[in-house]
Amino acid sequence: MGKTAVIVIDMINTYDHDDADQLLPAARAALPSVVRLIEAARRQGTPVIYANDNFGEWRSHHGEILATALAGPHADLVEPIRPDDKSLFVVKARHSIFFETPLSYLLSQLGVDHVILCGQVTEQCVLYSALDAHIRHLKVTVVRDAVAHIQADLAEAALRMMERNMGADVRTVDSLTS
Amino acid sequence: MGKTAVIVIDMINTYDHDDADQLLPAARAALPSVVRLIEAARRQGTPVIYANDNFGEWRSHHGEILATALAGPHADLVEPIRPDDKSLFVVKARHSIFFETPLSYLLSQLGVDHVILCGQVTEQCVLYSALDAHIRHLKVTVVRDAVAHIQADLAEAALRMMERNMGADVRTVDSLTS
Amino acid sequence: MGKTAVIVIDMINTYDHDDADQLLPAARAALPSVVRLIEAARRQGTPVIYANDNFGEWRSHHGEILATALAGPHADLVEPIRPDDKSLFVVKARHSIFFETPLSYLLSQLGVDHVILCGQVTEQCVLYSALDAHIRHLKVTVVRDAVAHIQADLAEAALRMMERNMGADVRTVDSLTS
Amino acid sequence: MGKTAVIVIDMINTYDHDDADQLLPAARAALPSVVRLIEAARRQGTPVIYANDNFGEWRSHHGEILATALAGPHADLVEPIRPDDKSLFVVKARHSIFFETPLSYLLSQLGVDHVILCGQVTEQCVLYSALDAHIRHLKVTVVRDAVAHIQADLAEAALRMMERNMGADVRTVDSLTS
Repeated sequence: MGKTAVIVIDMINTYDHDDADQLLPAARAALPSVVRLIEAARRQGTPVIYANDNFGEWRSHHGEILATALAGPHADLVEPIRPDDKSLFVVKARHSIFFETPLSYLLSQLGVDHVILCGQVTEQCVLYSALDAHIRHLKVTVVRDAVAHIQADLAEAALRMMERNMGADVRTVDSLTS
Repeated sequence: MGKTAVIVIDMINTYDHDDADQLLPAARAALPSVVRLIEAARRQGTPVIYANDNFGEWRSHHGEILATALAGPHADLVEPIRPDDKSLFVVKARHSIFFETPLSYLLSQLGVDHVILCGQVTEQCVLYSALDAHIRHLKVTVVRDAVAHIQADLAEAALRMMERNMGADVRTVDSLTS
Repeated sequence: MGKTAVIVIDMINTYDHDDADQLLPAARAALPSVVRLIEAARRQGTPVIYANDNFGEWRSHHGEILATALAGPHADLVEPIRPDDKSLFVVKARHSIFFETPLSYLLSQLGVDHVILCGQVTEQCVLYSALDAHIRHLKVTVVRDAVAHIQADLAEAALRMMERNMGADVRTVDSLTS
Repeated sequence: MGKTAVIVIDMINTYDHDDADQLLPAARAALPSVVRLIEAARRQGTPVIYANDNFGEWRSHHGEILATALAGPHADLVEPIRPDDKSLFVVKARHSIFFETPLSYLLSQLGVDHVILCGQVTEQCVLYSALDAHIRHLKVTVVRDAVAHIQADLAEAALRMMERNMGADVRTVDSLTS
């Protein structure tokens, strides 16, 4: 009945914020799985939605956010996941991808009732977005090797919370794409 | 205590929708007052926020929406109100400028408690946005000669509804800028 | 596919507010049609949801609101529409029945995609609620003779706005129940 | 400038749900601190807001929910925290106290910018509510010994998430009331 969308959280990033040092290795480790997930979605015609911070600038748009990230020192983490011309965008102001954004409306227009989450940060935006999806009765899959953390122990607790308390299916990209 | 923002509703427009024939003369008539209002706001450092339909495209952004409108047959209605590099943007999916958009959050971040509304359509988006501002306890001013209607009698009723039932101050651009 | 609910707006009322003098005759005139609509819904097993102001008291609940209204001078307007033990309730704080209430969630849980609106005030809460239903892609029916107004001309404009701009089906209780 | 409110989460409870066996000892342990917190708030005139599940019944209200809980086998956990006639109520349908409830509106009407959270479940509703408060720029205090968990290790992680990532002040009731 329903439909699936892949949501790529905060991967268009300049990595110049607090905690970036802790996040970078995990983002680098997650990157290949994020890329595989996006490519599989594109092959199957599954919508790919980039949900990304606007970095506090209400005059910038996703094209500019991408250009800024690609011009920065960590372009190697952004280039492989760059949007194509079918990608969809939601610019967010705060942690959750649903808070004061049109995502909920966009998903209902697309007929999506199942979201596959990847990106960063596992124990922050990913956790909060899984909660806000679950509270809206969306089915949630979290791709364990395609999310990046700042603190490993909190990330592990977050994955267990999603699985136990938010009905999320936590699994690897392998099990999704092979 | 509070602060004011000018909100320009749906003026970045290709005018190729239903009812455009009825709307065009009113938009043309309102244009000089919209321009005066925007220019006065810019002189005074009052934030100008463009709240605009995305025309159903979740991959377009405000730069593209503007480019499309400027490339169309009614560029003369768009060119005079084009955003400058301090303009702020909210892309909306449905009628009200508040529905599933970050506007409410943006206004609270700016410390704005008073919105001045101009643009189109008086008896539709302008009315609905005045309601949604009032319901959120924002003060509302509607600039009578800077809003454009499709149906004159419903627009007149809408202005009376805003004044009587939504506590809106309905006035001319003259009284605001002189 | 979908399901219908009847929503009774602000009919549990003490009528001691501003404009009550203007509202009372219209409420009295609408009452028989409201009663017929509720009775038809009960016969057919259609959910009846009372969406009502809480009169600013966050410690009162619908039982108390009803008791207060039944103890007042206008109990004759409340007694005929009193909830039964299958009635559902949404207490609202502001004009629209959707603003900061669980109605949207309740309707989705019930599988309702079509709301039939009756009650008061035609050119205020009824209009705003029709808009908020339409913006959420619900089908809207407004029962012309089961809504009560304060200002006749604005009410007439409101009904035309709902019909023309919000896709509402505006009709009589006769055409619904016979 | 701002004002504080104490929010008592899901303590009006029949404890007949899944996980109740695990929750009961923790609820019993937290009870004295919840009572002290409520009593201190009442002495100081700080609003006490009960945010509570409606147990899926859109026709019950907080009076009935309380009566049901007091008639159950765990009345000893409910009696000590029963609301008084100044208590405020928000009935919620899902996990977070903010999701589709009027709480956000109620707090802004009261001028509250700081919430003190107690109740249950630490790693579920308390965590989600702390997030939703933080995302709305409210200051958050969580009373470590006045919250009850189902799983001790996830609760400990939740408290660290609130402190580290949601700017929450996590402290004991002693440090607040003495």
